[in-house]
Amino acid sequence: MSADPRFHPAAGPFTLSRLAEAAGAGAVGDGTRLLRDVAPLDGAAPDEVAFLDGRRHLAALRATRAGAVVVAPDLAAEVPPGCAALVSPAPHLAFARIAGLFHPLPPLAAGIHPTAVVAPDAVLGEGCEIGPYAVIGAGARLGARCRVGPHAVIGPGCVFGDDCRVHAHASAMFCLAGDRVTLHEGARVGQEGYGFVPTPEGRFVTIPQLGRVRLGDEVEIGANSCVDRGALGDTVLGPGTRLDNLVQIGHNVSTGRGCVIVAQVGISGSTRLGDFVTIAGQAGLTGHLNIGSKARIGAQAGVQSDVPAGQDVTGSPAMPVKDALRVALHLRQLGARKGRPQAMRPEGGQPMAEQKEPPRGRPEQTD
Amino acid sequence: MSADPRFHPAAGPFTLSRLAEAAGAGAVGDGTRLLRDVAPLDGAAPDEVAFLDGRRHLAALRATRAGAVVVAPDLAAEVPPGCAALVSPAPHLAFARIAGLFHPLPPLAAGIHPTAVVAPDAVLGEGCEIGPYAVIGAGARLGARCRVGPHAVIGPGCVFGDDCRVHAHASAMFCLAGDRVTLHEGARVGQEGYGFVPTPEGRFVTIPQLGRVRLGDEVEIGANSCVDRGALGDTVLGPGTRLDNLVQIGHNVSTGRGCVIVAQVGISGSTRLGDFVTIAGQAGLTGHLNIGSKARIGAQAGVQSDVPAGQDVTGSPAMPVKDALRVALHLRQLGARKGRPQAMRPEGGQPMAEQKEPPRGRPEQTD
Amino acid sequence: MSADPRFHPAAGPFTLSRLAEAAGAGAVGDGTRLLRDVAPLDGAAPDEVAFLDGRRHLAALRATRAGAVVVAPDLAAEVPPGCAALVSPAPHLAFARIAGLFHPLPPLAAGIHPTAVVAPDAVLGEGCEIGPYAVIGAGARLGARCRVGPHAVIGPGCVFGDDCRVHAHASAMFCLAGDRVTLHEGARVGQEGYGFVPTPEGRFVTIPQLGRVRLGDEVEIGANSCVDRGALGDTVLGPGTRLDNLVQIGHNVSTGRGCVIVAQVGISGSTRLGDFVTIAGQAGLTGHLNIGSKARIGAQAGVQSDVPAGQDVTGSPAMPVKDALRVALHLRQLGARKGRPQAMRPEGGQPMAEQKEPPRGRPEQTD
Repeated sequence: MSADPRFHPAAGPFTLSRLAEAAGAGAVGDGTRLLRDVAPLDGAAPDEVAFLDGRRHLAALRATRAGAVVVAPDLAAEVPPGCAALVSPAPHLAFARIAGLFHPLPPLAAGIHPTAVVAPDAVLGEGCEIGPYAVIGAGARLGARCRVGPHAVIGPGCVFGDDCRVHAHASAMFCLAGDRVTLHEGARVGQEGYGFVPTPEGRFVTIPQLGRVRLGDEVEIGANSCVDRGALGDTVLGPGTRLDNLVQIGHNVSTGRGCVIVAQVGISGSTRLGDFVTIAGQAGLTGHLNIGSKARIGAQAGVQSDVPAGQDVTGSPAMPVKDALRVALHLRQLGARKGRPQAMRPEGGQPMAEQKEPPRGRPEQTD
Repeated sequence: MSADPRFHPAAGPFTLSRLAEAAGAGAVGDGTRLLRDVAPLDGAAPDEVAFLDGRRHLAALRATRAGAVVVAPDLAAEVPPGCAALVSPAPHLAFARIAGLFHPLPPLAAGIHPTAVVAPDAVLGEGCEIGPYAVIGAGARLGARCRVGPHAVIGPGCVFGDDCRVHAHASAMFCLAGDRVTLHEGARVGQEGYGFVPTPEGRFVTIPQLGRVRLGDEVEIGANSCVDRGALGDTVLGPGTRLDNLVQIGHNVSTGRGCVIVAQVGISGSTRLGDFVTIAGQAGLTGHLNIGSKARIGAQAGVQSDVPAGQDVTGSPAMPVKDALRVALHLRQLGARKGRPQAMRPEGGQPMAEQKEPPRGRPEQTD
Repeated sequence: MSADPRFHPAAGPFTLSRLAEAAGAGAVGDGTRLLRDVAPLDGAAPDEVAFLDGRRHLAALRATRAGAVVVAPDLAAEVPPGCAALVSPAPHLAFARIAGLFHPLPPLAAGIHPTAVVAPDAVLGEGCEIGPYAVIGAGARLGARCRVGPHAVIGPGCVFGDDCRVHAHASAMFCLAGDRVTLHEGARVGQEGYGFVPTPEGRFVTIPQLGRVRLGDEVEIGANSCVDRGALGDTVLGPGTRLDNLVQIGHNVSTGRGCVIVAQVGISGSTRLGDFVTIAGQAGLTGHLNIGSKARIGAQAGVQSDVPAGQDVTGSPAMPVKDALRVALHLRQLGARKGRPQAMRPEGGQPMAEQKEPPRGRPEQTD
């Protein structure tokens, strides 16, 4: 079951040797064997390449009909007879490179769609592909080989380096981006952040947001994620940092390189991340914090204080992971004790015993 | 107080008998009575139809001036004199059908707006309505009577069945959809998910995402929600499954039929839901889980392990609802004990005693 | 380090006296001194104006080279010699007004872009600026000096007052808005909310959503936030209420004036907020609640019952803040006790000891 060729046509075929070379792997088997695509272990055909993602899947490996499998050295012996092995100490990376050989980015269709609105003084590097209804503002500059999708908007004065991709419906403004930066569909970069002050009469006066967004090389912003520009000074995502979908980055947040920020995370203004910080899904960080390099923050964590470099925290409020496990175990045991929970009826809403139960098929009552 | 006719013009009027027929309800009252629209119980006029949403609203029923009320059999006697009753064992469903009779979908304005960009080899079924600035890619196929709103993007090779609706600003790519599928405004379907591997030097190499999204008949995706295509193999939403707004569905998630996924839920990659699973707002599920049919997951739950069919869980980490109620009660009592909480000053950030309190009118400090 | 003039050109320069007048502040220093822009305390040049944001930054104040600093009266004496002071009891508001003098909204480029699709019977007030690919539907009405950005969609019959801003990619339908209302990039207002009823066979029948959205004067909706129209009756945001990004407002929610709703908050249907309610990031509120005026809800709170006016709550389930602090302290101490947490192996998923730890550089496993 390889990739659907209507959507993901495969380049190649390639010999085992060629794949080994691309992957930096050692080939065990007939180097002239032709492979045509990648596929999952269960379902791969004899002309396809699969990947063993850990010991958990040994059963699938033994049963596979794949023509070649990417494996770590300690599991190479498990590869069934007749199946070639591509042995690598970093099998997932090797597989990614092989998949990338079969499925490179589609070739650029360089040119500007006749419906794109490109300001006369915008500067586009060689080979850019500008799609239907894209809007590129006054003085904007794109490097070579940039792809701008349908309806994407790049605001006045923005600068992007080479090989950037701004997908359909994304918007960027007040933005300086390096090379190989990607904004996925509906990403919002550089808009006005949430800053205002109350008057004595209870009205709100907006604080002009006078900063920008700076995106380092290879930064990626997921679909419908939001990165607000700085209030004074910039919001900065360091090289290689990747945001998943529906992430919120408040004004003047800054990150170092290679941060991994999973879906629906929210980081409040002026919080600073070091390098290679990982934040799992739906976590939230308050403002003005310092998160040290290689810290790891668990899913749904609520971080309200600095996290030292290399520390793992989770929970809300967040605490060291080992402590959080103790707490979770304690609460699980507490919950499992016998005896009826006394129903409490808080004012309004629904009785507590009903609150946690989304009614069957009555979603309007959970709304 | 019926629907604003500028926005929601009413079809009809209809006789009580006609409404009873549409609703599968029993009419009690003059079958020739003319009704002109639906309205809430308090505020309904004598030519309007209201609905009793449970015993809680009996006072409103007794005081209503509505011409007819949809009620369950056990409450039919409560309908005031002069007010007709439409009696149904499923009153909410009956009311939905009646409302749908007064307010059907607007008639299709079949045709392709002159500004729409439709690839020459795209195939559109009869009666499709393609709005301004919609973009339909090479080889895409839409069934009959599909509505594609302003700026919507349907990528190359996508297939939609009959009577689908792709609302303004939505995008679909690498997508195969059945009949009566709806993407609400700004929904993002089929984009590249979050998959990459680190190199030894700390750079990230993207794993090509070679799957698709498959949407069963009657699937609905809420505004600004995101459904990533599969990495290898598909992301699948079973027939009738409905996502609310701002939901994140990771690559290779699959659901059975009729799942109810409320706003801002996040489901990590490769997690599988059975049929009729309900997930309340802001819950999060880690990856590679199995959630059995008819399981119910509470609001803000953090699910990290499989949930058996029919079980109700909540909390973070999630546990059976009864256990979670015990825990919540215990913590509530613990919090209510006398004695000053000792203020703790974690490094950085703000003192704990201040952290939980969003300052009045100083939102920049909660950013 | 003032604002980047490519993106944020400064008006002026202005004399100290002029700034004092705009800010309602008392000037201490040479009133004819010329200032050219705002800047942060550390980095401000002698022709720039900075702001002291509290005692915490006194060191920066003493070292500043700014030409003038906005300060509260009790700290005015701390302003270094040679640096003028703008003294105000509301220094943040004063600074906002000064920044707004240097950086007013860009002048309107009144007119309708040739690519905008504006219905023949739409009515636009004087001085409106309608951008490329904007779509304004039949019978829509905009007041004077409205700005509609690229690709924005305003649906049929919508009404906006004067000086509104509908930014790029935003959509509004079934919407009545006052003056000075702002929809930020990708905001979704007025779409169909999440309402349906199951049939006995397990299919879902949509409940027509027959209400509207009403936005009071000066309401702001953040990027990619969603406000669903009412089911029967309206969803209402009171004057001055501001939503941050990625917020979800369910059908028939209503708020009073000046509510502050931070990023990624979700409010379920029919919940009512009074005036000046503050809800911190990622909090969730179930439906049909009443939240009293000036209540404050903490970050990530899970509110399942009414909150009286003026009360501060946090936690999930939410409880009074003082109680929540007690609980958090107790749990922190419990977690910090010695002893190995017993590893628990729930079915499926990953062992609990591994679940909270997003693997280094293996984001696909946290998906």
